[in-house]
Amino acid sequence: MKKLIEKIAQMQAPIVVGLDSLLDYIPEYIKEKAIKENPNPFDAAAQAILEYNKAIIDAICDVVPAIKPQAAYYELYSWQGMKALYETVQYAKNKGMAVIMDGKRNDIGSTMQAYAAAHLGKTAVGSVEAEAFGSDCLTVNGYLGSDGIQPLLGICSQEDKGIFVLVKTSNPSSGELQDKKIVDKTIYETMGAMCEGWGAQTANHYGYSAVGAVVGATYPDQLTEMRGKMPHTFFLVPGYGAQGGGANDVKGAFDANGLGAVINNSRGILTAWKKAGTDGRDFAQQARKAALAMKEDICSVIPQIVLPKA
Amino acid sequence: MKKLIEKIAQMQAPIVVGLDSLLDYIPEYIKEKAIKENPNPFDAAAQAILEYNKAIIDAICDVVPAIKPQAAYYELYSWQGMKALYETVQYAKNKGMAVIMDGKRNDIGSTMQAYAAAHLGKTAVGSVEAEAFGSDCLTVNGYLGSDGIQPLLGICSQEDKGIFVLVKTSNPSSGELQDKKIVDKTIYETMGAMCEGWGAQTANHYGYSAVGAVVGATYPDQLTEMRGKMPHTFFLVPGYGAQGGGANDVKGAFDANGLGAVINNSRGILTAWKKAGTDGRDFAQQARKAALAMKEDICSVIPQIVLPKA
Repeated sequence: MKKLIEKIAQMQAPIVVGLDSLLDYIPEYIKEKAIKENPNPFDAAAQAILEYNKAIIDAICDVVPAIKPQAAYYELYSWQGMKALYETVQYAKNKGMAVIMDGKRNDIGSTMQAYAAAHLGKTAVGSVEAEAFGSDCLTVNGYLGSDGIQPLLGICSQEDKGIFVLVKTSNPSSGELQDKKIVDKTIYETMGAMCEGWGAQTANHYGYSAVGAVVGATYPDQLTEMRGKMPHTFFLVPGYGAQGGGANDVKGAFDANGLGAVINNSRGILTAWKKAGTDGRDFAQQARKAALAMKEDICSVIPQIVLPKA
Repeated sequence: MKKLIEKIAQMQAPIVVGLDSLLDYIPEYIKEKAIKENPNPFDAAAQAILEYNKAIIDAICDVVPAIKPQAAYYELYSWQGMKALYETVQYAKNKGMAVIMDGKRNDIGSTMQAYAAAHLGKTAVGSVEAEAFGSDCLTVNGYLGSDGIQPLLGICSQEDKGIFVLVKTSNPSSGELQDKKIVDKTIYETMGAMCEGWGAQTANHYGYSAVGAVVGATYPDQLTEMRGKMPHTFFLVPGYGAQGGGANDVKGAFDANGLGAVINNSRGILTAWKKAGTDGRDFAQQARKAALAMKEDICSVIPQIVLPKA
């Protein structure tokens, strides 16, 4: 989490590009070549996705602090897709980017230990240890309560890793459960309070713990409300762009130092070449342009980002 | 779900073996061979796990209707682990077993469509379609509400697939959120009512919809309570065995026809050879013996399983 916050401040860019690399988003010439070179459809898909991701990363790594690959879009192409996911994570890290794995993982304690090692830590095989995926942060779902979160906290503090717990999600039906009230507090507020509690058990950097929260841009009032109620919790904010959120909707997620949140955009960056009406040969440059425009849009409504002294 | 119910009745065995194939559970001679043959640690782990899983499947496929691989224990070994997962699923299906993928996936609608295709459906690449993982059922988390579940329902009805939504989980802290009350109903009851609603949109076989629920054996009172309140929802029941649940704890999950639930056991079956004190060369036969003992234990407290006429 420290690495993520520092990179955000250094680049003055509280944004993350969601690598939801659907084949639909990838220009035809990349897909045609991959299909020609690989008889197996998943090998072809994985090659196209990886080539596409690498070019996007090359084009944005000096202006965007982090990527957020969505695990579902890699599982969609079986283990070959997961190989492309692993290689994407490693490539982005080598380019100095922070990586937020969007997996929304959740399970009982012993199983969460496996997820923690898989995505944030290392796996031992015999006398050797290696990173299975090696991301910096992981999104998780807190429905199972503390013992589904505890196994992640140690690794977060020891190795400067972070988690983002689902609090108030950006989708239309998020209120069906999350807005319901337990006595006088909504479920998302209750989950928010649990995040503050878990965060207190981890290292704190620049005012924020290693336990972040997912709070959607599509519910700006709740976003502002939760910023007030979760002062030590960094927010990952989906829903900007294609899902309908704008700069003014996410403004409330930031604190007086311009810190407190990282805003995600997936489709708006990945399909910028389609919106520009090109044949896709310039997809990476269009992604960079869209990322810079997003950065400018968000920075126009928040204070200059300053790292507070300890 | 139809396939799962019919296999349970045919074998008179409402049980599923959880393939949480930790390296710790695998006998030394298999691991040593795999490490010797593979310089890469994850290739070695994947080979050992697959060899172990296949032998377990061979030993139990005529007496156990289904396996439940836990995705976390495969992600732990990177894409090589996911390849072993894919091959385990295919192997079990070829042996006639039903496969419940324990992934507890959850996300917004567009992303859930990707998870649905990845685990239950098919993925299109160019003009070709293929199964990414190809399981029969998937466990999911309903914290995001209906639009995280809807994308799964069509595929469930069209292709006889099923989902199991987390309702009341087996872990010690499950009550932190799930037992809290919204007015006069707990959150797990609320989630249970949502499952009944989602299930009403799918095909019904033998009284049960394609939308099942996860309800833990470690809370027997709630299990009995939810059987009464969710008459059309089949239960996947974790927590028997190593987590502490016994036959009398799961009795309440069944209806008058002996249907309504499938009880999971992971560690108790996979590590039966350790409990028996052997060197592990007979691990598959020990697993079969433990599965038969579990079947007998559970069948001793429930009625003979009968498929009701439509």
